[in-house]
Amino acid sequence: MAYRVETDSMGEIEVPQDAYYGAQTARSMMNFKIGIEKMPIEVIHAFGTLKKAAALTNHELGTLDAQIKDLICSAADEVIAGKLDAHFPLVVWQTGSGTQSNMNVNEVISNRAIELAGGVMGSKDPVHPNDHVNKSQSSNDTYPTAMHIAAVIKIESQLLPAIVALRDVLGKKADEFADIVKIGRTHLQDATPLTLGQEMSGWVAQLDLAINAIKATMPQMKQLALGGTAVGTGLNTHPDYAPKVAAKIAELTGHDFVTADNKFAYLAAHDAFVGTHGALKQLAVAAMKIANDVRWLASGPRSGLGELQLPENEPGSSIMPGKVNPTQCEALTMVCVQVMGNDAAIGIAGSQGNFELNVYKPVMAYNLLQSVRLLGDALNSFNKNCAVGIEPIREQISDHLNNSLMLVTALNPHIGYDNAAKIAKHAHKNGLTLRAAAIELDLMSGEAFDLAIKPEEMVGPKA
Amino acid sequence: MAYRVETDSMGEIEVPQDAYYGAQTARSMMNFKIGIEKMPIEVIHAFGTLKKAAALTNHELGTLDAQIKDLICSAADEVIAGKLDAHFPLVVWQTGSGTQSNMNVNEVISNRAIELAGGVMGSKDPVHPNDHVNKSQSSNDTYPTAMHIAAVIKIESQLLPAIVALRDVLGKKADEFADIVKIGRTHLQDATPLTLGQEMSGWVAQLDLAINAIKATMPQMKQLALGGTAVGTGLNTHPDYAPKVAAKIAELTGHDFVTADNKFAYLAAHDAFVGTHGALKQLAVAAMKIANDVRWLASGPRSGLGELQLPENEPGSSIMPGKVNPTQCEALTMVCVQVMGNDAAIGIAGSQGNFELNVYKPVMAYNLLQSVRLLGDALNSFNKNCAVGIEPIREQISDHLNNSLMLVTALNPHIGYDNAAKIAKHAHKNGLTLRAAAIELDLMSGEAFDLAIKPEEMVGPKA
Amino acid sequence: MAYRVETDSMGEIEVPQDAYYGAQTARSMMNFKIGIEKMPIEVIHAFGTLKKAAALTNHELGTLDAQIKDLICSAADEVIAGKLDAHFPLVVWQTGSGTQSNMNVNEVISNRAIELAGGVMGSKDPVHPNDHVNKSQSSNDTYPTAMHIAAVIKIESQLLPAIVALRDVLGKKADEFADIVKIGRTHLQDATPLTLGQEMSGWVAQLDLAINAIKATMPQMKQLALGGTAVGTGLNTHPDYAPKVAAKIAELTGHDFVTADNKFAYLAAHDAFVGTHGALKQLAVAAMKIANDVRWLASGPRSGLGELQLPENEPGSSIMPGKVNPTQCEALTMVCVQVMGNDAAIGIAGSQGNFELNVYKPVMAYNLLQSVRLLGDALNSFNKNCAVGIEPIREQISDHLNNSLMLVTALNPHIGYDNAAKIAKHAHKNGLTLRAAAIELDLMSGEAFDLAIKPEEMVGPKA
Amino acid sequence: MAYRVETDSMGEIEVPQDAYYGAQTARSMMNFKIGIEKMPIEVIHAFGTLKKAAALTNHELGTLDAQIKDLICSAADEVIAGKLDAHFPLVVWQTGSGTQSNMNVNEVISNRAIELAGGVMGSKDPVHPNDHVNKSQSSNDTYPTAMHIAAVIKIESQLLPAIVALRDVLGKKADEFADIVKIGRTHLQDATPLTLGQEMSGWVAQLDLAINAIKATMPQMKQLALGGTAVGTGLNTHPDYAPKVAAKIAELTGHDFVTADNKFAYLAAHDAFVGTHGALKQLAVAAMKIANDVRWLASGPRSGLGELQLPENEPGSSIMPGKVNPTQCEALTMVCVQVMGNDAAIGIAGSQGNFELNVYKPVMAYNLLQSVRLLGDALNSFNKNCAVGIEPIREQISDHLNNSLMLVTALNPHIGYDNAAKIAKHAHKNGLTLRAAAIELDLMSGEAFDLAIKPEEMVGPKA
Repeated sequence: MAYRVETDSMGEIEVPQDAYYGAQTARSMMNFKIGIEKMPIEVIHAFGTLKKAAALTNHELGTLDAQIKDLICSAADEVIAGKLDAHFPLVVWQTGSGTQSNMNVNEVISNRAIELAGGVMGSKDPVHPNDHVNKSQSSNDTYPTAMHIAAVIKIESQLLPAIVALRDVLGKKADEFADIVKIGRTHLQDATPLTLGQEMSGWVAQLDLAINAIKATMPQMKQLALGGTAVGTGLNTHPDYAPKVAAKIAELTGHDFVTADNKFAYLAAHDAFVGTHGALKQLAVAAMKIANDVRWLASGPRSGLGELQLPENEPGSSIMPGKVNPTQCEALTMVCVQVMGNDAAIGIAGSQGNFELNVYKPVMAYNLLQSVRLLGDALNSFNKNCAVGIEPIREQISDHLNNSLMLVTALNPHIGYDNAAKIAKHAHKNGLTLRAAAIELDLMSGEAFDLAIKPEEMVGPKA
Repeated sequence: MAYRVETDSMGEIEVPQDAYYGAQTARSMMNFKIGIEKMPIEVIHAFGTLKKAAALTNHELGTLDAQIKDLICSAADEVIAGKLDAHFPLVVWQTGSGTQSNMNVNEVISNRAIELAGGVMGSKDPVHPNDHVNKSQSSNDTYPTAMHIAAVIKIESQLLPAIVALRDVLGKKADEFADIVKIGRTHLQDATPLTLGQEMSGWVAQLDLAINAIKATMPQMKQLALGGTAVGTGLNTHPDYAPKVAAKIAELTGHDFVTADNKFAYLAAHDAFVGTHGALKQLAVAAMKIANDVRWLASGPRSGLGELQLPENEPGSSIMPGKVNPTQCEALTMVCVQVMGNDAAIGIAGSQGNFELNVYKPVMAYNLLQSVRLLGDALNSFNKNCAVGIEPIREQISDHLNNSLMLVTALNPHIGYDNAAKIAKHAHKNGLTLRAAAIELDLMSGEAFDLAIKPEEMVGPKA
Repeated sequence: MAYRVETDSMGEIEVPQDAYYGAQTARSMMNFKIGIEKMPIEVIHAFGTLKKAAALTNHELGTLDAQIKDLICSAADEVIAGKLDAHFPLVVWQTGSGTQSNMNVNEVISNRAIELAGGVMGSKDPVHPNDHVNKSQSSNDTYPTAMHIAAVIKIESQLLPAIVALRDVLGKKADEFADIVKIGRTHLQDATPLTLGQEMSGWVAQLDLAINAIKATMPQMKQLALGGTAVGTGLNTHPDYAPKVAAKIAELTGHDFVTADNKFAYLAAHDAFVGTHGALKQLAVAAMKIANDVRWLASGPRSGLGELQLPENEPGSSIMPGKVNPTQCEALTMVCVQVMGNDAAIGIAGSQGNFELNVYKPVMAYNLLQSVRLLGDALNSFNKNCAVGIEPIREQISDHLNNSLMLVTALNPHIGYDNAAKIAKHAHKNGLTLRAAAIELDLMSGEAFDLAIKPEEMVGPKA
Repeated sequence: MAYRVETDSMGEIEVPQDAYYGAQTARSMMNFKIGIEKMPIEVIHAFGTLKKAAALTNHELGTLDAQIKDLICSAADEVIAGKLDAHFPLVVWQTGSGTQSNMNVNEVISNRAIELAGGVMGSKDPVHPNDHVNKSQSSNDTYPTAMHIAAVIKIESQLLPAIVALRDVLGKKADEFADIVKIGRTHLQDATPLTLGQEMSGWVAQLDLAINAIKATMPQMKQLALGGTAVGTGLNTHPDYAPKVAAKIAELTGHDFVTADNKFAYLAAHDAFVGTHGALKQLAVAAMKIANDVRWLASGPRSGLGELQLPENEPGSSIMPGKVNPTQCEALTMVCVQVMGNDAAIGIAGSQGNFELNVYKPVMAYNLLQSVRLLGDALNSFNKNCAVGIEPIREQISDHLNNSLMLVTALNPHIGYDNAAKIAKHAHKNGLTLRAAAIELDLMSGEAFDLAIKPEEMVGPKA
């Protein structure tokens, strides 16, 4: 590979000839050979937006030439569009402020802008990575800003729509199956009946709660640290800079970001990340319940509960028709578990700030963005490959309902509690249906029994 | 001890003569000899409110006699007031639906009501534990309702005021110390200056964020499962019962509870608990940052940072004056760690519902209420015994500021970057102040230096 | 209440007349009104052993009079025996070194010893809490020592026997049910058969693994910090003190404690606690799997899997015979979840040491001892009230096995894969048994089928 | 891209022309578009070993032709060597048994073997993915086996050596600095002295404990599930197969694997993973303590503790010489936090097995292998880029020691406790050294003071 030599205050260092990144990125690659997890690309793209907004704002405030501004914006647009993804090689496990990724972005935008201007890469002329691209900024306020931009965009543009889509599919199923009366189960034991639609409506309600919970945490996530610079005071910025640059970011992204009320808190802590991930955990917990219900209800085909049929997406056993492994449920619940693990990591990291800086920023960004990505993808996959095709196995549902000893409660008004109990006990002991037991004990005729036992009237309050 | 014999469907069982509880409670004590953690008393008191509200509502709906209603209300009032606490001996580690604690409450209210009516304890006459006290209810909807009532009351009446109080004390300190310029620290390394007031304002902002985060989760916590009965359908309730009983609970408590939109979700899952505890974790994380900053800034007295003086609450070493261990910080951070652990437990428990019931209710109630209690108490203790008495050690703060090499940035406009760098390097190498280095290098006079270096002008943006 | 006035370096303070504790304990009660969790009594009892061992060792090394030694031992014996439990009122949420609980013990032993000697409580004469009871000690080495003593005793004397007992009961069941062939389930779906004994042997193996895992962590737990005094150097101790006092503790307890190779690590970190609790989490995870299997296999009675019958310990529904809620499983799994939460807390706390001291000692002791106590109790309760009474429901097991389509694999050698597949598909589509399908398709006679399909030959390797 | 069409029981599917994988892999890619986390390559390589060992064993047992065996071994060797890494595109979030990755391996080995034999890829001739490559195997026993092989190899070959290397470097430093007396710190407050070597020896001891803890969990990790096939019974295997294939794997890898005593436990649960990761968490907790101590002791350069100098690896501030951000500590502690999060995920996943299978295998493998990789890499990076270059800043250490008020304890024997206390108080109040205070109070001469105060004699027990 061909290299060019760049110099920083530590001395010379080789940089691949065709890399837009420069000395500081190259040095970070040498010093942090840790793991395989790259800085999340969403953070890099958000940095593109940030750098563009800063250039535009600096220009408006009269501290950056139009030409430099335009060059930065052009290069930044390519970062945003993902065209330069290959030039961001750094891993998550670096400086805890994300400084090196900020410098990676500065270097790439500077060099690409220089290239656009016909200059020499690495020359820092006419676009300097620090003086121009990083103008009015510090790693300490840019990195958390990029974290927030990335998180909000992913959550609002991808995750929330995925939840809503699943919610709608399940909601439609719940309506469709509103009349299928089935046995309820509490403590895993047979209980009084409900409709399949009602059961599914509980899942829908959980997703609605999760949507609301996530949305309720967005205001604290939309506050941006940008303008705080090194320690939160805003040293070396124009008094109008912070609110203006946040407004610019809002304009560029279409998400209503604002400047943080208090910059010190947004550099030294990432409580908003902790809070938002708490809501993501709520979603994970809900998805786990739903996916578990789905696979249990679909268990069998012969020796399980067998009340639901799931779409068959992969070859099941070649010998055993009907064996459909609930693989989408499995993938989704693994994701849910991962999100719960990520929640632990984010909480610990969030608690470890000192004075003016929390230096666990990259690990927090990594975990939250992984959770968002995995939940969004897994809900979409579950929706498309499983939920849309869920069908009731009506005969089995009906058998379970009719075999249930729990229905005996409906006989109390007709033959009294004691006789009803006799029927139930006789049925249980001898493995009979209640109807058969009633007839065998000569306590009711089949016709009277059928008139009395109407499970469909047991699925709601009655005046 | 004297015993009376009670009977349930399993047979006879001895109950202490003077216990208001009955057979089912006694049997649970035999079957669950696990641990020492009692069912949180806040849940019991909330059950008192619930039983009273149910009796009042049943009476209004015409299904409970006025006399029975009054007896139940009288006994329930004693439960609410904590007069009968000794009669709730059950542990957390019981049936996962909390059934036995619901029966414990039914038995205690029934027997105390019977006693008030001049009847025979254990006779179930004239107030029957099931038919009257538990009327229109099931363990499956009462226990989660009591969880929610207890949590909301504790959070809104005790925890939020404790946060606000600390926030106000720290806010006042921040104002008071608004003019004390001090060195900033990032990566634990000396950085550009800020004021002590600014530093503290970051703590205040974190508490404000936590307050908002917790409040934002209250709507989902204020939805009550009551009226769902066994599986969420509301079997055996009047159609008006659910909304009415929620309104009654709101009236009795002064907290704006409503009936849950979807009862199935509130029996089979406790996502609201997961979400609310996520916000409590955000608070814990914020408190950990604050307490850590406080104790580090107070470290010393000689070989630490020594910028803050904390109140001395216990005998420090009898031989070493000035050694004040930051014990309130230690208690508070231990609480924060406990809350993070509780968060993990609540998440797992919340994910484990099946079909119509989650059977991890008591462990969720236990952990959330412990978190609320500990955070409230610890913040109050920290506030009263530490925060109110925090004082700056001005000389040390001033020494740190003046010794800082970071201030050299202010010389750039006066003597150029290169000369400024020379001064900084000379100072660092020889352990001098910047001022001494400037004079020694003959680059600036002391007077010129004093005019140029004004840390108080480095603590904000400048036009 | 009557009070006596005691004095410490902060001034006078009232102490209840009949309390053995003194000024420092009373002051701690004022300063730490946090929560309801008392310092675990096991730690207090361990402190009793520690103080006795220290007195005996100091006497042997010639630094403590025989009379004082005897008085201390007498009082310490009462602490060990639990006779003075009421005199240890402090909460977990105190100084992070546990200093105040160490002083609580010093005060109680001193005052009780003084009382035994006919002296005046609070006079510190003839037995001084610091000079005599705390001789050659510091809170910083005594508290971690007491943590370790308490943990090892509880684990070896109570937890391990509880696991072994359950293991033995399940092992016996596994033997007993070694011939009951049943359907296997993977992905919750019907799979190839195994015996009920084999299925249970998996549970037994998990418990064996947990026993070994816990035992493997004991060596690091049995190293004691005592002798390190304030910072780990052993200042103010005799060179022979540390190994001798550890040997004395081993002798007094019957558990093979030794002095820690490196005291600095045992004051400044509690990695052994983290490691041991990791093994406890392994146990919790195993218990959760077992309890879940038990309750799922016992689900029903009509609409679940219904292969196991559990003992009925509480009144089920009065109307529905056969409804046995798996309450012991529920209590046990709640405990498992709590242990997982505790594991998170212990890990975080364990990571937060600084320099010569970790100040999260009480929260670590609290969580680990809670885990040990809950696991021990819950396993015993599950064993006694559930496991011993588990019985197979042979008819249901047999039905599931015989209905299984999975058995068709055994027909391949007889009629070829294609014909076997036809039978399976026909059976699945029409809800038939394989046998019926084979006959209906005229592919095999019932007799031939019965000869070919022998599930009991499918439960192991074959040469 | 060119495609070939393959067929499975679901129908036709396009596979990239040059891909060794086949229909089932292609189908999985369509059905599980979730996240960016590929199945850990260590698992794939381990599968290579497994397939080779199975082929060799099947051949030895007479059930696989020599030619097929050789072809499989050749292709498997390429998998082991990483030559075919590009052909394993599946993500972690797939079937919970890892079935699709097992099939991916079967397809790749089959097709590569076919290619080597000059056959047509996709033809399954002469090497069939199921009949030959997967012979005597099931996903349910192969995937957990591959998990264990990968984990043990990574831990024993990479992680343990990394810990030992750091331990040795720190141990050497501890020896080197054995005579540097410094102030101790407890509760972050000045305490009695110790040597820098002693302080570092505590870190060494923590690493030693971690090494032992990890090693102690290896026996349960080295038991392999292979031979259990679908449900643990070993259906379709030769009675000698399980022990022989484990021995073969031991031989091929040089790690002493054995066949699991009980296969049911090793398919249905992954307790060994939970236990081993608990030991990894112990290591993470230890590393966090060490890294935190290092960066705090290196804090400054002026306004921190400033007792250690760390190597400078990146450009610090261009203006502020001496500012060395502790970036290696930051990367390492972020890794530690990640490991703690992974521990939570692994625990939950491990608890969720049902009956004969735990279907959270891939998420467990992913997290444990990430932890191992990150810890190994980060410890190496910290060692090479930080630990080896740690140097004491002797003047600062000396100043801290000499300024300490704690040394006054050494005066007690000379001038009595009361006078010593007077000196300490006077020194604290007036910001003097003890020596100056002693002279000023006319209690001791400078010479007498120097004779009495010898910190170097306070760093150990004394007879």
